[in-house]
Amino acid sequence: MTAEQLQQFLLAEIPLARCMALEVESLSASAIRLAAPLEPNRNDKGTGFGGSIASLMTLAGWSLLHQHLEPGQPPAALMIHKSELNYQAPVTGRMTVETTIDQASLQHFLATLQQRRKARVELEIDCHSDQRLCARMHGRFVALLQDTNP
Amino acid sequence: MTAEQLQQFLLAEIPLARCMALEVESLSASAIRLAAPLEPNRNDKGTGFGGSIASLMTLAGWSLLHQHLEPGQPPAALMIHKSELNYQAPVTGRMTVETTIDQASLQHFLATLQQRRKARVELEIDCHSDQRLCARMHGRFVALLQDTNP
Repeated sequence: MTAEQLQQFLLAEIPLARCMALEVESLSASAIRLAAPLEPNRNDKGTGFGGSIASLMTLAGWSLLHQHLEPGQPPAALMIHKSELNYQAPVTGRMTVETTIDQASLQHFLATLQQRRKARVELEIDCHSDQRLCARMHGRFVALLQDTNP
Repeated sequence: MTAEQLQQFLLAEIPLARCMALEVESLSASAIRLAAPLEPNRNDKGTGFGGSIASLMTLAGWSLLHQHLEPGQPPAALMIHKSELNYQAPVTGRMTVETTIDQASLQHFLATLQQRRKARVELEIDCHSDQRLCARMHGRFVALLQDTNP
């Protein structure tokens, strides 16, 4: 999946991503960078709304993993299970959100999913704006193999 | 501030709240209930998007406290500082988000803000859909008295 394909998918399938004017700046097997402009994501003070920051971070982690599951047989469902989010500084302009996964963690996640039909993985996700770290999320994502013989 | 006034404020000042079609169902000094329909807040699977849930929870906690600070002299800034969010079940319909604060915690928060120019308070915020608890957030909010003699 290319960055452009992922962006089209997110904008088509998740209405809030359209509202946020989400952009996929880059995507590889082990790293992703999403971005969004300030204006549709501002709060009453004119800085970044916490909910927009959380949304962009959630989509970054989910998308980084999703590319490795889709299309799969049997298909897998992927969801965020838990997050811890620290807001450290106000978002004062365009926000970028990044996360990475190392090859060993990814392979362990995918192998566990096949063996146990369920697997989880934890990601650190950072949000920057104006060259400043504004927020950091620790997110736990869970994948489930779908039942193909209902 | 009435529920209707709060809804107008949130829809006017926070673009994402408009996209989410946020509604303020009820507001008192010690409790708040927000709601949002599923359609603008769905994910690719047709259930509630985690970012929408986080956004609605953040706005519930912020709004419950904000009514006690505005209008204040000197004015106070209120922001979410940290959140821990557990997603427990998929949101399958209209979502409602609720939180409360007891009188003692509220008075301590407001008194500390006046004495130290900074105060924090922690809230438990629940999200329900179809009579089921779908997510629970533990949120820490911080208020700062603004400098009126810059």
